[in-house]
Amino acid sequence: MTTETPVAWIAADWGTSHLRVWLMDAEDRVIRRLTSDRGMGGLAPDAFESALLDLVGDTLGEGVTDVLICGMAGARQGWAEVPYAKVPCPAPTAAMKILTADPRLSVRILPGLSQAQPPDVMRGEETQIGGFLALEPGFDGVLCLPGTHCKWAHVSASEIVSFRTFMTGEVFALLTKHSVLRHSTGGDDWDAAAFDAAVSDALSKPGRLLSDLFTLRADGLLNGTGAGVSRARLSGLLIGAELAAARPYWLGQPVVILGEDALARNYLAALTAQGAEARSVAAEDITLAGLKAARTGKDKT
Amino acid sequence: MTTETPVAWIAADWGTSHLRVWLMDAEDRVIRRLTSDRGMGGLAPDAFESALLDLVGDTLGEGVTDVLICGMAGARQGWAEVPYAKVPCPAPTAAMKILTADPRLSVRILPGLSQAQPPDVMRGEETQIGGFLALEPGFDGVLCLPGTHCKWAHVSASEIVSFRTFMTGEVFALLTKHSVLRHSTGGDDWDAAAFDAAVSDALSKPGRLLSDLFTLRADGLLNGTGAGVSRARLSGLLIGAELAAARPYWLGQPVVILGEDALARNYLAALTAQGAEARSVAAEDITLAGLKAARTGKDKT
Repeated sequence: MTTETPVAWIAADWGTSHLRVWLMDAEDRVIRRLTSDRGMGGLAPDAFESALLDLVGDTLGEGVTDVLICGMAGARQGWAEVPYAKVPCPAPTAAMKILTADPRLSVRILPGLSQAQPPDVMRGEETQIGGFLALEPGFDGVLCLPGTHCKWAHVSASEIVSFRTFMTGEVFALLTKHSVLRHSTGGDDWDAAAFDAAVSDALSKPGRLLSDLFTLRADGLLNGTGAGVSRARLSGLLIGAELAAARPYWLGQPVVILGEDALARNYLAALTAQGAEARSVAAEDITLAGLKAARTGKDKT
Repeated sequence: MTTETPVAWIAADWGTSHLRVWLMDAEDRVIRRLTSDRGMGGLAPDAFESALLDLVGDTLGEGVTDVLICGMAGARQGWAEVPYAKVPCPAPTAAMKILTADPRLSVRILPGLSQAQPPDVMRGEETQIGGFLALEPGFDGVLCLPGTHCKWAHVSASEIVSFRTFMTGEVFALLTKHSVLRHSTGGDDWDAAAFDAAVSDALSKPGRLLSDLFTLRADGLLNGTGAGVSRARLSGLLIGAELAAARPYWLGQPVVILGEDALARNYLAALTAQGAEARSVAAEDITLAGLKAARTGKDKT
């Protein structure tokens, strides 16, 4: 498999469960996108190079091709551990060079961010933040990055000042797939009013999560409450609990949610209902924007 | 397999994951205990009778043997759905007769309890409560039944007045087995001081659970915090969050914890540290005591 346009460099987002790659031309335009399910979670350190070559080997030219990677490939269990940059700091541009057996590759991995107090870490989201700041350089406020581990980051004067991680998405997935609530919350039905009410309940009475959860089950058994209501209510209870704890981040600050999928829309609805000054932006290529920005700033390497 | 002493009746605790059986003589003494892993969760309704016969069939005499069952066998997905008794009420004694193909069996299943507001249910714990009240008939106060779904029950004038279920145990199991925290909380090490501190933290700052959870992971990555500390701290954060929400139950009330295992001891330590008037009782045969009490009171059937 070859492409007409020569590949000038390769951008990669290597997460726990997926590898996403952009083949770039010399003018920083995307030639092609490739994805693989060979995420960091399933790879031993010595399997990363071949996983990358399986995906992009056929597209490499004669010379050396730069590959710039962000995400969990730089974790302790990844390809090679890249030490965290410490906040407060700008989105990292100084990537660590990784030795490869194939001479056609010149691989570098960007660091994640760490925070000393309270202890927190990210790997990958810092590049999304960098991408957002490349698009809106003067932004001063708070970014919310919904997902398995939702991140809230305070950004000011082009630096990431502080951040917090909430395990909201992972807890939702565990409860709907593996807990007794799987009987009450299956399927894809969604009751928006139940979500709104649950967010409000959780915000007005924080700290009741562990009993509110079982109420969902009992409500289904006793009152025949449907899965669409229970599922939306579960999400609302969790996101409401997150918003209660994240209030120091969003209260009185301009908030931008990175993403426009269903989850991002739910965060936007919840924040807006609380009177927060929130908007969302499309996140599809924001990681690529961050990788491009990091490559441009790579002179610090 | 036969026993010397004839089996007068059979007591059974049929939960989601296990079936526990006591073969009883005519003087309500235990002849033998039997257990099976054929819990309600893995059985279709028509498989319960044969599962029971596989365990006790050889011990049945010529005549009809009464079998009194409590627990999830009476759930909607169980052997047959037994409608809940509604609180406030005494521990149920009116069991529902189940038709069997084998004429040697006379099977009855005790109902669980339901509460209308907030919606809540139990199946099995009501029999433990009945067992405790048979042993301490004049008790007025609060019972705490730690487990996968921890129950708090307010008992007064021999009735269960109200109760609440917390999914604490199930959430702990999901997080330690299936979440990103499994990397930080594995093994059996336990740091009691970390547990105490986390309970106190969760009680003084309720509602921060979803971010406190990820702090455990970050603390392990950044500061090398060991699994014994992280595991105890996770348990303390969850039990502390439960105690914060259950405060209306335990504050100013005599509290008895049913159980003396490690989990029950942790609840006792946490409650005592909060100045609660708490003690624990051995729970090993308390379900049997409840089944015996229900059988004695069966004239209401």
